Amino acid sequence: MTHSPSTPHYLHLTEHFQKIAHFEHLSALGDWDQATMMPIGGSESRGAAMAELARHIHELKTDCFIETSIEQAEEELLDSHQMSNLREIRYQFMQANVVPADLVQAKTQLAYRCEHAWREQRANNDWQGFKPNLEALMKLVKEEASIRAQAQELTPYDALLNKFEPGMTTKRLEHIFGDLKSWLPGLIETVQGLQAGDSKISLAKYSARSQEALGRDVMAYLGFDFTQGRLDVSSHPFCGGVPGDIRLTTRYDEADFTSGLMGIVHETGHARYEQGLPKEWRGQPAGGHRSMAIHESQSLFCEMQLGRGEGFLTQIQPKLRKHLNSQLTIGELNHIYTRVKPGLIRVDADEVTYPCHILLRFEAEKGLVDGSLDVADLPEFWAEHMKSLLGIDTRDDYRNGCMQDIHWAVGELGYFPSYTLGAMYAAQFRFAMEASLGPVDELLAQGNIAQVFDWLDKNIWSQGSLLTTEELVKRATGETLNPKFFRRHLEQRYLK
Amino acid sequence: MTHSPSTPHYLHLTEHFQKIAHFEHLSALGDWDQATMMPIGGSESRGAAMAELARHIHELKTDCFIETSIEQAEEELLDSHQMSNLREIRYQFMQANVVPADLVQAKTQLAYRCEHAWREQRANNDWQGFKPNLEALMKLVKEEASIRAQAQELTPYDALLNKFEPGMTTKRLEHIFGDLKSWLPGLIETVQGLQAGDSKISLAKYSARSQEALGRDVMAYLGFDFTQGRLDVSSHPFCGGVPGDIRLTTRYDEADFTSGLMGIVHETGHARYEQGLPKEWRGQPAGGHRSMAIHESQSLFCEMQLGRGEGFLTQIQPKLRKHLNSQLTIGELNHIYTRVKPGLIRVDADEVTYPCHILLRFEAEKGLVDGSLDVADLPEFWAEHMKSLLGIDTRDDYRNGCMQDIHWAVGELGYFPSYTLGAMYAAQFRFAMEASLGPVDELLAQGNIAQVFDWLDKNIWSQGSLLTTEELVKRATGETLNPKFFRRHLEQRYLK
Repeated sequence: MTHSPSTPHYLHLTEHFQKIAHFEHLSALGDWDQATMMPIGGSESRGAAMAELARHIHELKTDCFIETSIEQAEEELLDSHQMSNLREIRYQFMQANVVPADLVQAKTQLAYRCEHAWREQRANNDWQGFKPNLEALMKLVKEEASIRAQAQELTPYDALLNKFEPGMTTKRLEHIFGDLKSWLPGLIETVQGLQAGDSKISLAKYSARSQEALGRDVMAYLGFDFTQGRLDVSSHPFCGGVPGDIRLTTRYDEADFTSGLMGIVHETGHARYEQGLPKEWRGQPAGGHRSMAIHESQSLFCEMQLGRGEGFLTQIQPKLRKHLNSQLTIGELNHIYTRVKPGLIRVDADEVTYPCHILLRFEAEKGLVDGSLDVADLPEFWAEHMKSLLGIDTRDDYRNGCMQDIHWAVGELGYFPSYTLGAMYAAQFRFAMEASLGPVDELLAQGNIAQVFDWLDKNIWSQGSLLTTEELVKRATGETLNPKFFRRHLEQRYLK
Repeated sequence: MTHSPSTPHYLHLTEHFQKIAHFEHLSALGDWDQATMMPIGGSESRGAAMAELARHIHELKTDCFIETSIEQAEEELLDSHQMSNLREIRYQFMQANVVPADLVQAKTQLAYRCEHAWREQRANNDWQGFKPNLEALMKLVKEEASIRAQAQELTPYDALLNKFEPGMTTKRLEHIFGDLKSWLPGLIETVQGLQAGDSKISLAKYSARSQEALGRDVMAYLGFDFTQGRLDVSSHPFCGGVPGDIRLTTRYDEADFTSGLMGIVHETGHARYEQGLPKEWRGQPAGGHRSMAIHESQSLFCEMQLGRGEGFLTQIQPKLRKHLNSQLTIGELNHIYTRVKPGLIRVDADEVTYPCHILLRFEAEKGLVDGSLDVADLPEFWAEHMKSLLGIDTRDDYRNGCMQDIHWAVGELGYFPSYTLGAMYAAQFRFAMEASLGPVDELLAQGNIAQVFDWLDKNIWSQGSLLTTEELVKRATGETLNPKFFRRHLEQRYLK
């Protein structure tokens, strides 16, 4: 007599998604390698291999058995975790299945070409060259948005948001960002007033090699396990790989070690999240990260909530002395890491002005998708908004204006809000954590960083996607996203 | 009116094999990464991902449409190159299709486990631990050999040889190796007599870093294009990657730079072959390397035919001075690189004693496959043959005896002969080349190494698998494999 499983359809689905995870493993490896190791001669065949792989994964995710199996699995007796997994399976299937394979392929190919050209066009400030590529790509983005919107009964821009942030809507973002817009410019002005006349601390030059040694030491302090991942160099820092083998990258500026170092702290936050995802759910949709905003909340928790605090700086200052022979005091480090200054570049922005870059992009994306903003009018739109939000003149500087980010060059709209949502979640998590553990800064100063990570592990990492974002945040903090904590955090740190 | 292709079945096959090549690209990347970059934490999920990929590739290679499409393509009007490609498609299909998927998977899994355990067992000289694993694996190897043999009307060992060396037979090898056995032991004895009393040249210690700089310089001298590949470190040197992105590895011994350096020269020979394969046939079976013996002939051409010659040493001696600040003279380098001394380890052997290691393994493999040699009797067999071939006592030293190579630990029998066939082809190619270009050694001394590679490119590399091995060698040298050139080469170099 053989046992037949009581949940055959659910099991079949989990096996299928485990298979998909194996191919996604290879996709992650290909991406990482391309950014860190691959010589230029490999581009063509890698591009073709990755496109083939993406197509295969798309085919697997839209396999015709899935839809009916989901329906049948819904009748099976599943426990609550299995039900969560089935919910995520359904979501992934739906996200993949609504878009025709031809559109996926056309967009992938165009995005690849557009990005490739953008790298040089950006360096040359060549807006005229970039514009037609972006226009062509935007056509496909609109088509994708409209197809996704119809299938999900959402507005087109909401449908794009939902690729990264399941459940997020334009309306909710407008509410959250509207509030932000009401107080942030004032705060920036106040802080700038407080910081006016500060002298700039000059930095010595340090080799990439010694900066890397410092970075590894700081990663180890942040609990990164080097038997479960790597640190390498790429022109744009990122965190890739797979749980068990998380690969993060940074870049080193010999004249300014502070940005490379904080880049490592940021990516280590992403890495710890991935490494902390529930091992028993590896390879299943329920075992993946919850959303991009939650992912960013973990990196920003490390970089902003911990990394700018005195407790953290107290701990890493001896490491700076050891690896760089730097004589910077904790006070000087604190000074460096809390300067607020409006600038052109999003990725170089401090945590106070950063959301302005997102507000601008959110408005632009809405316009690009609903047709009220043409690609041709983007530079003017950019200049106006940079002027009003940050008081900066960006006219004719396309390179450091609307051409600065890779997201649009690869046709990904809807991602940007995740950064600021992440910063908000990070602040909310810290306040919730402090309600039970006491001030995080003091914990770190006392050498108790492990308690901080234990909280994150228990409340965020180990939950994977077993809960919805709303449930996750409510269980961890007692309420859903509440932007007031972000405001409180900034005011505490910058108005003192 | 649309054009329909006049060779639809052939075209369909080429598209399908191009697709397979894309997945093989990812397989090559996964292998390379595993050996060079992957942290231990990645093993489990990588193993699973690679097995999934191997299975997918096997499914693609045995897709049910292929057999009939080949038959129909054979009726189409193909040019001679297309016919060659169809021949190679047929060969690859047949090699994959004759083995049941279950056996492939069972052998892959067992080989993975056996190799994993072998790494530690070898270090511990643990023959008793290795023996049952090897016995289990050998059962599957025999099953594979017998299935392949039946399908191809070959003997079982011939069927294994044909995985690496299409067309090669035990009978032919017995003839070739029988000849070798008749004169090689005598030559070894004579050379040892000539070299008796030589003083050993002591080497200074050099950091891995400076050895790497030297290695890169030598690779560039050998025409390696670093925009088309990389050099890294792994515990076992190999040449991997894909044309356009060839990745070779070496290992550095601080106390002896000479072996790491010649390892690089060897792998660069493999790399140039891969880089020189016909670009217009990339992704098609006709565009791949001809056979493993031809592959080894290219690495051994660089390492042995060029690398041990005075012309080559004249060119690299200034590089040694530059990177290592080494004061070794050309004469001393020549002395170091032409010492003949029987030893336990195949990969450390000089070119004169090396074939004895292959003769032993060839006899052992035949016995293991036809059942006349039991795994349990392998150590005794090994000791006897090492004694008679090289005069060395290996009893109880399993680690440096029958457990030294990875090949059997992963269930690959039939490969070893390729090494010595490669050495023979390399010698034959040099003599043929010299008939038109004059002494290679002099060309190199005059800085004309490009002419040597031009010859190889024209006659070997650019031919891919468009010709059979027999045709290739005959066109390049005027005759098929003739071992007399190898003998002549050794006598010229070592009896002077």
